[in-house]
Amino acid sequence: MKADVSGLIDHTVLGTDVDVQKVGMMCEEAREYQFKSIVVQPCRVLQAVEFLRGAKIGVGTVCGFPFGGDTTNIKAASAAESVASGANEIDMVMNVGWLKEGHVSEVRADIKKVVDASRAASEQDVIIKVIIEACLLTDDEKRRAGQIVKEAGADFVKTSTGYLGPDTGAKVEDVAILREVVGPDFGVKASGGIRTMAQLNDFVEAGANRIGTSAGVAIMNEKL
Amino acid sequence: MKADVSGLIDHTVLGTDVDVQKVGMMCEEAREYQFKSIVVQPCRVLQAVEFLRGAKIGVGTVCGFPFGGDTTNIKAASAAESVASGANEIDMVMNVGWLKEGHVSEVRADIKKVVDASRAASEQDVIIKVIIEACLLTDDEKRRAGQIVKEAGADFVKTSTGYLGPDTGAKVEDVAILREVVGPDFGVKASGGIRTMAQLNDFVEAGANRIGTSAGVAIMNEKL
Repeated sequence: MKADVSGLIDHTVLGTDVDVQKVGMMCEEAREYQFKSIVVQPCRVLQAVEFLRGAKIGVGTVCGFPFGGDTTNIKAASAAESVASGANEIDMVMNVGWLKEGHVSEVRADIKKVVDASRAASEQDVIIKVIIEACLLTDDEKRRAGQIVKEAGADFVKTSTGYLGPDTGAKVEDVAILREVVGPDFGVKASGGIRTMAQLNDFVEAGANRIGTSAGVAIMNEKL
Repeated sequence: MKADVSGLIDHTVLGTDVDVQKVGMMCEEAREYQFKSIVVQPCRVLQAVEFLRGAKIGVGTVCGFPFGGDTTNIKAASAAESVASGANEIDMVMNVGWLKEGHVSEVRADIKKVVDASRAASEQDVIIKVIIEACLLTDDEKRRAGQIVKEAGADFVKTSTGYLGPDTGAKVEDVAILREVVGPDFGVKASGGIRTMAQLNDFVEAGANRIGTSAGVAIMNEKL
């Protein structure tokens, strides 16, 4: 069971004061536990690529994170630069304000431009995950957000940044809603506040096929 | 006293789900109370510029916010785009990880490129504030950070993003340290957790000449 689980985990460290030692440690942990990917800030992508050379572990980074309030141009430029530096997973934040205003085509175009710019920047496959910050959305808005993410050509809809304060992370009900909206062949990533194997299992059961957490090592070391 | 105070306040609303109505309301409040500036996400700069046309109120936005982990290229491109859209104040976040690693020249170059790109993007004056996230720094690092900000040609050193959780905002002692480091003719902005006139006065007394807060209206309406 644990071997299956590790391949679902995006091992994530985004703190302001993360240094190269911390990035190196994360990458070692990712090799040891065979996590799916690591997620670091854009300024650490080149280092993570170097640390993970030869390993089959994704290098992910964020884009417009955590507020989603960068312009579409800058989101696309940031994603393209990260991919050109070797990242193959991009976790971007949807423009939630535009969604709330009903500007669906702008929200879709914001995502599509990041998808297109990322794919154009590399020969390798790039996975784009779009964070909808479900804690701010009504259930209707969550459904609309999931649809838009799929229409825009991204690969995953993701629940949360985890950075809006206590209790703003992933909820099992939201994962179930999103899985229903996007269907069985699309990605659903749960993240924010996931710190135990029991939580992780609940999210997977609800339909998540990727888990973002900074507690991956602790989860893998839980006594069975 | 209150009239003097309002001119120190950067009226700030950065939330993920801020919509055009909220931006409009902020700009009306800024006109009514004669705040120094408003601060919005990059995707709201054009709207704020429109709402504040004819008023002598700055339009500010953020850059590399709140983690400071975007690449220098993207920080500079983001600031330049915001300025070209009419922003005249940029609150950027220092690369704190690089500071911790002792990469002083990279930290300085990161700021200088934002300063240069911003100034090149407009004929009007642009004010660059650099957030050092003092809650993560030793006193020595705070001093070094203040020096670097000044050397890089920015206009203000700013204490905090306010987004790293409870009790991570501005501290009076930090403002005093920064004022001592940068001297009397440089900007010091205190922000994060400032919600009362008493706090504001303490920060001004310690040397701050700009205050970032989302509680500006409440502060101005406190009973004397």
